Amino acid sequence: MFEKILIANRGEIAVRIIRACRAMGIKTVAVYSTADNHALHTYLADESVCIGPPLARDSYLNIASIISAAKGTHAEAIHPGYGFLSENSTFAKLCRDNGIVFIGPSPEVIDRMGNKSQARKTMMDAGVPVVPGTRNPIHSAEDGLAKAREIGWPIMIKASAGGGGKGMRVSSCEDDFIEMFSIAQRESMNAFGDNSMYLERCILNPRHVEVQIVGDTFGNIVSLGERDCSVQRNHQKMVEESPSPFVNDEIRAAMNEAAIRAAQAVGYTSAGTVEFLLDEDRTFYFMEMNTRIQVEHPVTEMVTRTDLIEEMISVAAGEPLTFTQEDIDPRGHAIECRVNAEEPARGFLPSPGTISQMHLPGGNGVRVDTAAYDGYQITPYYDSMIAKIIVHGRDRTEAIAKMRTALEEMVVVGVKTNLDFQYAIMENETFAAGTADTGFIEQFLKGEV
Amino acid sequence: MFEKILIANRGEIAVRIIRACRAMGIKTVAVYSTADNHALHTYLADESVCIGPPLARDSYLNIASIISAAKGTHAEAIHPGYGFLSENSTFAKLCRDNGIVFIGPSPEVIDRMGNKSQARKTMMDAGVPVVPGTRNPIHSAEDGLAKAREIGWPIMIKASAGGGGKGMRVSSCEDDFIEMFSIAQRESMNAFGDNSMYLERCILNPRHVEVQIVGDTFGNIVSLGERDCSVQRNHQKMVEESPSPFVNDEIRAAMNEAAIRAAQAVGYTSAGTVEFLLDEDRTFYFMEMNTRIQVEHPVTEMVTRTDLIEEMISVAAGEPLTFTQEDIDPRGHAIECRVNAEEPARGFLPSPGTISQMHLPGGNGVRVDTAAYDGYQITPYYDSMIAKIIVHGRDRTEAIAKMRTALEEMVVVGVKTNLDFQYAIMENETFAAGTADTGFIEQFLKGEV
Repeated sequence: MFEKILIANRGEIAVRIIRACRAMGIKTVAVYSTADNHALHTYLADESVCIGPPLARDSYLNIASIISAAKGTHAEAIHPGYGFLSENSTFAKLCRDNGIVFIGPSPEVIDRMGNKSQARKTMMDAGVPVVPGTRNPIHSAEDGLAKAREIGWPIMIKASAGGGGKGMRVSSCEDDFIEMFSIAQRESMNAFGDNSMYLERCILNPRHVEVQIVGDTFGNIVSLGERDCSVQRNHQKMVEESPSPFVNDEIRAAMNEAAIRAAQAVGYTSAGTVEFLLDEDRTFYFMEMNTRIQVEHPVTEMVTRTDLIEEMISVAAGEPLTFTQEDIDPRGHAIECRVNAEEPARGFLPSPGTISQMHLPGGNGVRVDTAAYDGYQITPYYDSMIAKIIVHGRDRTEAIAKMRTALEEMVVVGVKTNLDFQYAIMENETFAAGTADTGFIEQFLKGEV
Repeated sequence: MFEKILIANRGEIAVRIIRACRAMGIKTVAVYSTADNHALHTYLADESVCIGPPLARDSYLNIASIISAAKGTHAEAIHPGYGFLSENSTFAKLCRDNGIVFIGPSPEVIDRMGNKSQARKTMMDAGVPVVPGTRNPIHSAEDGLAKAREIGWPIMIKASAGGGGKGMRVSSCEDDFIEMFSIAQRESMNAFGDNSMYLERCILNPRHVEVQIVGDTFGNIVSLGERDCSVQRNHQKMVEESPSPFVNDEIRAAMNEAAIRAAQAVGYTSAGTVEFLLDEDRTFYFMEMNTRIQVEHPVTEMVTRTDLIEEMISVAAGEPLTFTQEDIDPRGHAIECRVNAEEPARGFLPSPGTISQMHLPGGNGVRVDTAAYDGYQITPYYDSMIAKIIVHGRDRTEAIAKMRTALEEMVVVGVKTNLDFQYAIMENETFAAGTADTGFIEQFLKGEV
């Protein structure tokens, strides 16, 4: 097992990884920007190295600084967390070239899944259902239009190299197709230096359901079941839960099986998430695979009683998974709410500032993951997350009730938060009925649900 | 199911019960003394009723006030928590007489187990092993001496009506027996108005291992496994864990079976704990049964994924247990540390005062039960507990590592605490080896372990 790991991240996920390392008896190195010299991860790690000024590109995305911090502290491995360099194959490759273990899949697998068009093709070959659309890259609007006529409108136009909503447009009818294609392609050129596009049938207000898998270097791949992340605003998840209230046992089994097939197709190791869209008939389509740990991983840990970060670390050290598929016996229901410093009424505008006081909820089945504390400063440089509140109940009704209590108990003074907004979701009838799709937040804001 | 429950307690256990009620959709009534008008349980409940001045005997032990608070708020049931009126059969009976459900066993069962000498007899009849000693009450020192000669020294002299260490003395040899008996008997007369005593062979520095059981009104009794509570100071538990590192599978099965037999012998309903002493050969002896929820119940909840408070409530409402013995599948290892406002170096002297700032630990497998918050005042009227930190790990080594991290992360400003003392226990080799017995803290303070 590793003796020392560097955590190339900040905030709650850096704290989360430090805690896992300590539980395993592994020493930790934190890296931090000058904006984070009083951050919790900086304090909690055994060693801390400043890697640059506040802007992410100068610090948390500064590959050279991070690699040299790892070498200077003799860290044997780097955990990238989520965001930042977590899906950067160049970084993963540079780690390898420098004799440092990147805690995640190989750079080749990251690349193969990172190119959305290539991933789509890989999944089609592996027999994993994808959204009906094109198979090969399209480079001109005219070729696109011909293909679009076969698929039918509305249609999604996506950049092969895309991600985070960039290089993506919806064409609602034949008349706007050329224009939308051109805009999306130009965006892709600017953002990724790549003009290859693909088309997908547009599934209106789908459910977003993803399957957590984890694989080791012995070829074992285990599925830990699904998470429903349909409650999103601007493609950012707000509430996540496991199991999905929308998925029945038959669909669940088929999705788990498809996710394992997807992971097997690329010889996946480490933790990863296969994201699916479900239409109203519960037909599911592969959307993309995230080759990293995700923000919402705790809901899976709560129902399966596993520790995904520990599993990632031991797998990266060449050990087999600590469980088999038969050991995974999800029980009860878990929900996560992301508590952010933001103003929901003003388009979720971030509300940076200093948390003068904070009180955390607790009790049976309540987990809090946070890097905040009394006096903690939320800067405008990074995301505005204050804490993740995760609850586990016997069933969904109890989990919702527990979340309401936890949100009510939580106190944050000094910055505006979405606590009341999240509470309102937990009191909403559509959410309670389990029928909220990805259009829910928009309808909720309009008072339509 | 009940619509409204009154919680006849304060502090973390009152908060714990309020949370359970909310998870079940039950309204809550808190009662509070004038010293607790800013206490967390007073805020969190749906309704709060002041029941008297600070001294417990005028408020939390004031049966008339509590019953009338329940009637005035139309609460259908009362949860007594632990301590205060939780093992008071007169209170349980008065609840019944007033048409209020007492959430616990019947007054008859409380009495039968409350009289230690009678409980001992009941257990002997049920074939549960008890510490070798007398069967029938002894009223004179001379009769006692005759019996003591049969048992041998050192010997425990105990009040039949005893509890909390009152009316209890150790006689080390024949010469001091009459004196010790007389002192213990006088103490018993003063404290309980009862002069009947019993004798037990003295087991030096035993392990304290207890079994959690829960029963319903349909005659189902389930054992949820054991807790090891050997780490005590002045008979007060400091660290509790499940499973016990001292007990092997064979002893475990025998103890579970004995605990179920003990509960069956009295037709036990609700949650209860059968406490055993184990000598160095792992021979176990019934010590007493606690007919209430215990402070350390969360370690059992963590390994069994149950909710004992919810179970107590639903059983009291006449529903069957939500699980069978086969459903109980303890996994991993849980440890609880009681964080108190006290000075270990000064004989654990309580350190009342105002908590000006508090930071709680969190993360995967970390549970915090507390009624404290920034600005919370720990008064000299009640116990000095600040919080219970409970961790769950894959195994005992991981649980200890997680507890070390949690204790390190926890910050309490404004009062002295035992955080460093608990941390030192988590670093101690004897504790790590799992060989700490009830003499551990004393030896630890002397630097002998």
